[in-house]
Amino acid sequence: MNTNRLEAFSDGVIAIIITIMVLEIKVPHGETLEALAPLIPVLLSYVLSFIYVGIYWNNHHHFMHMVHNVNGKILWANLHLLFWLSLIPFATGWIGENHISAVPVALYGFILMMCGIAYTLLARIVISVHGQDPKLAAAIGRDYKGIVSVIAYLSAIPLAFVNPWISIALYVAVAILWFLPDRRIERVLD
Amino acid sequence: MNTNRLEAFSDGVIAIIITIMVLEIKVPHGETLEALAPLIPVLLSYVLSFIYVGIYWNNHHHFMHMVHNVNGKILWANLHLLFWLSLIPFATGWIGENHISAVPVALYGFILMMCGIAYTLLARIVISVHGQDPKLAAAIGRDYKGIVSVIAYLSAIPLAFVNPWISIALYVAVAILWFLPDRRIERVLD
Amino acid sequence: MNTNRLEAFSDGVIAIIITIMVLEIKVPHGETLEALAPLIPVLLSYVLSFIYVGIYWNNHHHFMHMVHNVNGKILWANLHLLFWLSLIPFATGWIGENHISAVPVALYGFILMMCGIAYTLLARIVISVHGQDPKLAAAIGRDYKGIVSVIAYLSAIPLAFVNPWISIALYVAVAILWFLPDRRIERVLD
Amino acid sequence: MNTNRLEAFSDGVIAIIITIMVLEIKVPHGETLEALAPLIPVLLSYVLSFIYVGIYWNNHHHFMHMVHNVNGKILWANLHLLFWLSLIPFATGWIGENHISAVPVALYGFILMMCGIAYTLLARIVISVHGQDPKLAAAIGRDYKGIVSVIAYLSAIPLAFVNPWISIALYVAVAILWFLPDRRIERVLD
Repeated sequence: MNTNRLEAFSDGVIAIIITIMVLEIKVPHGETLEALAPLIPVLLSYVLSFIYVGIYWNNHHHFMHMVHNVNGKILWANLHLLFWLSLIPFATGWIGENHISAVPVALYGFILMMCGIAYTLLARIVISVHGQDPKLAAAIGRDYKGIVSVIAYLSAIPLAFVNPWISIALYVAVAILWFLPDRRIERVLD
Repeated sequence: MNTNRLEAFSDGVIAIIITIMVLEIKVPHGETLEALAPLIPVLLSYVLSFIYVGIYWNNHHHFMHMVHNVNGKILWANLHLLFWLSLIPFATGWIGENHISAVPVALYGFILMMCGIAYTLLARIVISVHGQDPKLAAAIGRDYKGIVSVIAYLSAIPLAFVNPWISIALYVAVAILWFLPDRRIERVLD
Repeated sequence: MNTNRLEAFSDGVIAIIITIMVLEIKVPHGETLEALAPLIPVLLSYVLSFIYVGIYWNNHHHFMHMVHNVNGKILWANLHLLFWLSLIPFATGWIGENHISAVPVALYGFILMMCGIAYTLLARIVISVHGQDPKLAAAIGRDYKGIVSVIAYLSAIPLAFVNPWISIALYVAVAILWFLPDRRIERVLD
Repeated sequence: MNTNRLEAFSDGVIAIIITIMVLEIKVPHGETLEALAPLIPVLLSYVLSFIYVGIYWNNHHHFMHMVHNVNGKILWANLHLLFWLSLIPFATGWIGENHISAVPVALYGFILMMCGIAYTLLARIVISVHGQDPKLAAAIGRDYKGIVSVIAYLSAIPLAFVNPWISIALYVAVAILWFLPDRRIERVLD
């Protein structure tokens, strides 16, 4: 079985996830600029989540490009990733609704962590199915990013109860880590 | 006519069904962990439905892979399946809203049963159009799963009025039956 | 330019239209069978609209299959059709909300009529671009169905104020006209 | 990497954007024609936004057709465009909710302006990656339309506080500028 339909389905789900988040930005009833003010945290959490979902789509796109055939295990590992990604709009909406308070920010970190773990799991299952493809192995060899991310999320969960902005800063830092082209990051980390 | 567009359309509809269920998980107004507590049944029913829709997508994916051309009958049998699948988010939301009570759980079983019947119908129409393709016939030959599932759903509907958790247990058991790779299941059933 | 992306985009929009209608079936607050009773008109209007959107998808699928290249005019004629189709969920929700009363049923007929006109317009523009392709011409030659449909919708609008069920009966009759395979219909009309 | 998956993902997001706008047209509770009256500004803003999103889809379709491979920069420039497009349903809903008043109309202009800038940015990054492809250069050479549009949006923002209908007129004028086939516009502007 080839990867076309897996990619198409994943694209569909990710496209819907990234777009339905905008439904959480409820149209304000007033018509003044002040009516927009309570939407600022909603909008900021939307931007962060949009970037995160965009990163996952990008990575999924690059990774699946190297995969030539899929089996039941890969399909389910992929659905598992999509499941955790699908909870991002919920956590994003909750952060926005409560103006960046502790529990929602911690939950957001938990869901991001589960997305990260699900992605790593998917990558390992793909590797185990495809054996020692040097290109795939190289892609996974660079997985220090994945480990750094999970550590950051894991720290962000308790830190949200100290100050949710520390956790937000960690999420932004992880997003930057993934957003910047690999080579620059590698030079920074070397 | 080839199956590409049928698969693409089905993927689109299934991707939307699996994702809009998350819209039923309403963002709580409080910002405490307790505010999340009433969401636990909502989340559990979401997980179950996510797995069910995932199973249908997987099976649809595998089955359509063996089909080379479609006609009007197949298109409508496929739309009939999508219709019943599209009611899963509604039944899921109703179960979650009422914390797993009798009527919603019974309705959920009814909709799953109709999905199962619609899938079997689609399979039979495909077989009747494609004649005696041995690969397709083998795929349908394994349909004891479909029969077991429909019997389980049919029992779950009245049992929901005894105790809705019995029905939930049956739905979980059917999901496991489909989720596990065929060979293991076959060995268990032999 | 080929039709692939036009078909993919139309499939996406139609898949979303057919699925978001289910969001209009609001989860009832009660947990009894009686709580489902007010949903019966909502569900019936959903079934009717699902079949209508399914018919449009089927016809679009068959028609675009014969088209080999598209230009700006065809793209816009197609978007025009998608615009009117996108209003079907709104009219469906309004019928369901008001238990099949006059104005919503008349509006539904108006939107179906505009969909029919938009489809005919799209077909004519495709013909004018592709010249005298005998296969396309034959497909359009069978357009008595389109004419009958528009006359039925046009009659249904004032008749909704006499009795909305007459209009519903007309919508069901038109759906059957399109649903049944062409040959049988042709034999009936001959 | 080829453009297929980028196009498919963009199509998915744009299809969802264009369709979820219809969810802002809330089903009225009454069942009379008068109940529809407050929906007229909602419907008009929906029509305008539908045409705008349609224009972006058309242009994206044409432009990406000339692009043969994509890199990380292009993927992110494309996501940046999709981000601003995804805010159109929000601004559309806000205009409709407030019957075309100053701040919502100005915000709508701001979002359209950011979409325009994001599209130009995407075009420039594609050009810089593909070097001096004469066909691409010609497509961008015609970018006076982009410049005229951004100037119109920029004027519309303060003018909304004089009279929001002036801004609406400017948005309609820009839509017509893009909607009409290029040759006629060029003749008019020459």
